[in-house]
Amino acid sequence: MKRIDGRNFDELRPVTIATGVQGFAEGSALVEVGQTRVLCAVTVDDKVPPFLRGGGTGWVTAEYAMLPRATPTRSIREAAQGRVSGRSQEIQRLVGRSLRAVTDLTQLGERSLIVDCDVLQADGGTRTAAITGAYVALYQALAGLAMVGVIAGIPLKSAVAATSVGVVQGRILLDLCYEEDCKAEADFNVAMTGKGELVEVQGTAENKPFSRETLETVLALAGGGIKQLFQVQQEAIEKLNVR
Amino acid sequence: MKRIDGRNFDELRPVTIATGVQGFAEGSALVEVGQTRVLCAVTVDDKVPPFLRGGGTGWVTAEYAMLPRATPTRSIREAAQGRVSGRSQEIQRLVGRSLRAVTDLTQLGERSLIVDCDVLQADGGTRTAAITGAYVALYQALAGLAMVGVIAGIPLKSAVAATSVGVVQGRILLDLCYEEDCKAEADFNVAMTGKGELVEVQGTAENKPFSRETLETVLALAGGGIKQLFQVQQEAIEKLNVR
Amino acid sequence: MKRIDGRNFDELRPVTIATGVQGFAEGSALVEVGQTRVLCAVTVDDKVPPFLRGGGTGWVTAEYAMLPRATPTRSIREAAQGRVSGRSQEIQRLVGRSLRAVTDLTQLGERSLIVDCDVLQADGGTRTAAITGAYVALYQALAGLAMVGVIAGIPLKSAVAATSVGVVQGRILLDLCYEEDCKAEADFNVAMTGKGELVEVQGTAENKPFSRETLETVLALAGGGIKQLFQVQQEAIEKLNVR
Amino acid sequence: MKRIDGRNFDELRPVTIATGVQGFAEGSALVEVGQTRVLCAVTVDDKVPPFLRGGGTGWVTAEYAMLPRATPTRSIREAAQGRVSGRSQEIQRLVGRSLRAVTDLTQLGERSLIVDCDVLQADGGTRTAAITGAYVALYQALAGLAMVGVIAGIPLKSAVAATSVGVVQGRILLDLCYEEDCKAEADFNVAMTGKGELVEVQGTAENKPFSRETLETVLALAGGGIKQLFQVQQEAIEKLNVR
Amino acid sequence: MKRIDGRNFDELRPVTIATGVQGFAEGSALVEVGQTRVLCAVTVDDKVPPFLRGGGTGWVTAEYAMLPRATPTRSIREAAQGRVSGRSQEIQRLVGRSLRAVTDLTQLGERSLIVDCDVLQADGGTRTAAITGAYVALYQALAGLAMVGVIAGIPLKSAVAATSVGVVQGRILLDLCYEEDCKAEADFNVAMTGKGELVEVQGTAENKPFSRETLETVLALAGGGIKQLFQVQQEAIEKLNVR
Amino acid sequence: MKRIDGRNFDELRPVTIATGVQGFAEGSALVEVGQTRVLCAVTVDDKVPPFLRGGGTGWVTAEYAMLPRATPTRSIREAAQGRVSGRSQEIQRLVGRSLRAVTDLTQLGERSLIVDCDVLQADGGTRTAAITGAYVALYQALAGLAMVGVIAGIPLKSAVAATSVGVVQGRILLDLCYEEDCKAEADFNVAMTGKGELVEVQGTAENKPFSRETLETVLALAGGGIKQLFQVQQEAIEKLNVR
Repeated sequence: MKRIDGRNFDELRPVTIATGVQGFAEGSALVEVGQTRVLCAVTVDDKVPPFLRGGGTGWVTAEYAMLPRATPTRSIREAAQGRVSGRSQEIQRLVGRSLRAVTDLTQLGERSLIVDCDVLQADGGTRTAAITGAYVALYQALAGLAMVGVIAGIPLKSAVAATSVGVVQGRILLDLCYEEDCKAEADFNVAMTGKGELVEVQGTAENKPFSRETLETVLALAGGGIKQLFQVQQEAIEKLNVR
Repeated sequence: MKRIDGRNFDELRPVTIATGVQGFAEGSALVEVGQTRVLCAVTVDDKVPPFLRGGGTGWVTAEYAMLPRATPTRSIREAAQGRVSGRSQEIQRLVGRSLRAVTDLTQLGERSLIVDCDVLQADGGTRTAAITGAYVALYQALAGLAMVGVIAGIPLKSAVAATSVGVVQGRILLDLCYEEDCKAEADFNVAMTGKGELVEVQGTAENKPFSRETLETVLALAGGGIKQLFQVQQEAIEKLNVR
Repeated sequence: MKRIDGRNFDELRPVTIATGVQGFAEGSALVEVGQTRVLCAVTVDDKVPPFLRGGGTGWVTAEYAMLPRATPTRSIREAAQGRVSGRSQEIQRLVGRSLRAVTDLTQLGERSLIVDCDVLQADGGTRTAAITGAYVALYQALAGLAMVGVIAGIPLKSAVAATSVGVVQGRILLDLCYEEDCKAEADFNVAMTGKGELVEVQGTAENKPFSRETLETVLALAGGGIKQLFQVQQEAIEKLNVR
Repeated sequence: MKRIDGRNFDELRPVTIATGVQGFAEGSALVEVGQTRVLCAVTVDDKVPPFLRGGGTGWVTAEYAMLPRATPTRSIREAAQGRVSGRSQEIQRLVGRSLRAVTDLTQLGERSLIVDCDVLQADGGTRTAAITGAYVALYQALAGLAMVGVIAGIPLKSAVAATSVGVVQGRILLDLCYEEDCKAEADFNVAMTGKGELVEVQGTAENKPFSRETLETVLALAGGGIKQLFQVQQEAIEKLNVR
Repeated sequence: MKRIDGRNFDELRPVTIATGVQGFAEGSALVEVGQTRVLCAVTVDDKVPPFLRGGGTGWVTAEYAMLPRATPTRSIREAAQGRVSGRSQEIQRLVGRSLRAVTDLTQLGERSLIVDCDVLQADGGTRTAAITGAYVALYQALAGLAMVGVIAGIPLKSAVAATSVGVVQGRILLDLCYEEDCKAEADFNVAMTGKGELVEVQGTAENKPFSRETLETVLALAGGGIKQLFQVQQEAIEKLNVR
Repeated sequence: MKRIDGRNFDELRPVTIATGVQGFAEGSALVEVGQTRVLCAVTVDDKVPPFLRGGGTGWVTAEYAMLPRATPTRSIREAAQGRVSGRSQEIQRLVGRSLRAVTDLTQLGERSLIVDCDVLQADGGTRTAAITGAYVALYQALAGLAMVGVIAGIPLKSAVAATSVGVVQGRILLDLCYEEDCKAEADFNVAMTGKGELVEVQGTAENKPFSRETLETVLALAGGGIKQLFQVQQEAIEKLNVR
């Protein structure tokens, strides 16, 4: 049985990552996963948050937002509402943690990398696409620092990428589009390193609890998809004129 | 090898749940897990959020906050900062989802139950303690509605409780206290139904990715702890003069 | 003629003060006046507000809030509204002034004591209960500083406690519960030192102006009640293992 | 012994009240007490706050603010800070209560009168000046409503005016200017009706508690000053071309 | 004498307008003027602002924001600051007015068109690029409404486009890039209709006042540039599969 | 054909400027243009904004607000709304720029002059009246600094004043009152130096685009009016006991 958009249960949507799209940023990547499009830009800042000052260690943090018409229905700007929504904050904490999990912060020196993830179009999976794209933008920024000798090498312990899996009408499906996501009984976001280890697993029963066996299947499916994402990341990185 | 506070790796801290502690609320519970103390109060509101209006279905939502001196260091009040922090929003969304996963919202009618979880003292595991206590307070409020005939029965499909697990110096430990939590390489929050199914799994590598095998062990350990929590919940519920 | 809850016109509700209830704080007290319950926690901070810096003098300040279901009807959290309400600000200014009036700030050194007063349950008189409880928590924190030699002695010039009085259907009543407070024609909050002097008198005609004679009676009644509060405070302090 | 500005202990500063200064408002008054200048404007609104809807009763409320350079040192605008300060809220609640205490709200019908008190220049006593001026502006607005038959008469039960008293170096002084206010050991705001009854008494020990005898003297002194304020109010009202 | 980027004084940077880039929106356009890139998306809303309700007339409004790394230095998100900046508000009011000036609001019916202008990259002239691109997106949205018969025709009285002019080291230059803008002694934004009439003229002396003669030259130069922009708009519109 | 208030098309409303009205400020002016009344107060601050620190150069900035009942209908306070409106921010940026255009900031030293413009009554033209009055208050503050030798002379390169012009029913009219402004097809604000040069020109088509010829006429008309404003400014300055 085919899915809404004709894919197999274990099939990712078409994925592309273009670098250099925000030319003023130290690193940038536009990631497209099906109709989902997220623009990631990395800024290098010579300060760290107060809790790290004087420790000689760096920091990686992320911000996330959606353009008002990224979605079929317009959403009110968070600036107009005077606050960052709970959903955005949850996502930017997730993206930041995933990137820090593969970064050797001790090799960064006391500087911060801020990764802005702005969703131009949203068709499900924006947070996992943000992680996948942000890694490439982060690589570019770190490679730039290494190239000019600010840091000794690229302090990344591994790649990191992420995808979603959902249970829809009892079937476990990889990389949900928005229409599938709306009907999911349970949904999962999984971020994995290039070595096959997990950095984030978030499983949520929307209206039907799930078994440990389901979670096992989910992780296997996610692992397969993420391996393909590593390939796309690698190709994008190889096109950069950095090493 | 014993833990900081002398527990075994698979041992919960002492847990108690007292009901009726906020007498003006429709349901209330004070849950204590070791030194962590969370006050849960349920309010029944005859309105539902806009996206549910006219659908005949109810809603369960949660709010979460910490008193400024719940912690060893005083934290600034969120009201004084003019906004609910990202952490609080993330937790209240988690608590709300966990409770909705076991509630038959169609049997509630168009009314909302708001569960306020206020942390009086925080020694790790406040979000999972909030879920565990909130279930009891929710039961009391729903039982009250059923007793006066507003709803036909208690629309709970199962109990729900939650606990944390962490990887500390390579050992997988149940129900982390704050001191253990600070040193954890990875930590996990697991919410489970009385039928042994999962409603939330959140695993985060703080600075060391984890394997799928570790996640398996985590879930087994959490499952064992949560079974004991169901026992404490059940005892608290039996003391209520409701059915 | 008896009052709603059977008390005489000059009778306080039952009052208890328990210390040490927020174990992480430098001082803490849970004060209960009838069904009103306020949790007071004191934090010692090694900074003073800008207007005092360099003057060698300390400061005592207070914050006040109510849990959403402290009351029969749920109130929206101030953090969710993005601001501290006018009522809360008025009360925290009152509590702070009352405590400063009995503290020898010059003996404190350049440090601040922040007193958090959180209302767990509200049945009238929360602001005066907060003052009464806060004094005990403040004493504990100051005694702790003195015990370790940070300050030479306990820089309190006197105790301070407070109660309310109201004119209800022409009768002048001590320590109003919420139901009486709602019907009061005029109400009064009085804070007094252990030496019988006044530090705060706030009299407000809700819908019936009052005479100077009424105010005289109010002060006498309040004075009688506050003397009993000093007794409860003293007992709580004597149980502390501090001097 | 003369005061800073040559007055006797029981002497008000020169007081004037001019009406009609904000010509677009339904009532307006510019009150000057020494160098303190407050502009009061009354707006009639055909709505009442939610808690009064459907009750047939009206409402009187006040707002208070200071221009940034009302004071020797510029203060930051509350709008720029994004919130009304605690001090402003406390004062506007005081002004509103004082005016409601003399207004027969049941004769107003379901409408609100909003009294804006904006301090053009501040030399102490702005809150009491605001009450004194606001009464005249309120009278003008109500007289206007009565004149066109919207209400049957002017629903004011009495005049209301206010002044301050302070204890400065042990002397009890009427109507403090800013310089005196800064040095006051205790200060008092008193609002009184034209019948000599009290509607607000606020006494605060700044750094020296006060006795009941002091409060007695304060009330007598305030009463004398307020009688003169009624005279100035009456003259301003008589000049209005309303009855 | 050539300009920084080799252009003549009266030469626009390369301009392109692509439509349909935010596929979920009723109209969208990505306008590029040199390195400046602005994404415009139009939403049709079946409501009008309160001041227009019941009048049968429509409304066009705009919002404007920049991505944090649109610029060489990262700017803090307005949502994180809790407010829309004065600069953004000024620009969105300008864009809205310019679009309303060419729209026959009476033919729109009681509906609003909201035009979101998000700057992906900023190299000077973002506000005038926003007007130029927004017109195309607006055309697409209106054409869509007309095609399905919601409105009788496309209620646009004329095209509208805008450009900037500046005085740099005494020379009057068309379409400033950021580097030129920083050095400008005076700068001008001009919005013009397809009929050659003006809808907005904003001239500002940054540090050198300008003469009426200079303004005359500015308007002539702007007029020449804007005519070319009309051409680019027209080509973009012709590629739409709408009429 | 006479205007609403009997003026000729090229006739200003009566203009007066009184100085010293906010006695605590370093400079102050109350400007009246017809029924429009704006109070301007200048504060000298020994700091400059961050982007100027260490450059030896000064700064002039402005803030603008309206009292709630400056207008026929009461407007909500910006402080109560928690933000400065877009309109206010636009105006305060305009006033600041106009004043900076005539001030030699390099002669100021590293200090800021903050000009508060508060509208007591609004009958059209409040922003241009603010500029006209602010110049006089600024002159007074600078003269005060010069008199005590803080700066060598008064660092003003020229006077600056402003007025509005509008197209009403096809007629071009100087200095619109509110009633005319509401009906204007296009309106213009023009700020000019004492040497006849322009510092700000803002032309906006409300619902009818305008030609370059119209703009020419507007500038001529504005120039005539502004010359008269310079006269009123000069008289106010001559009355100051400064040189």
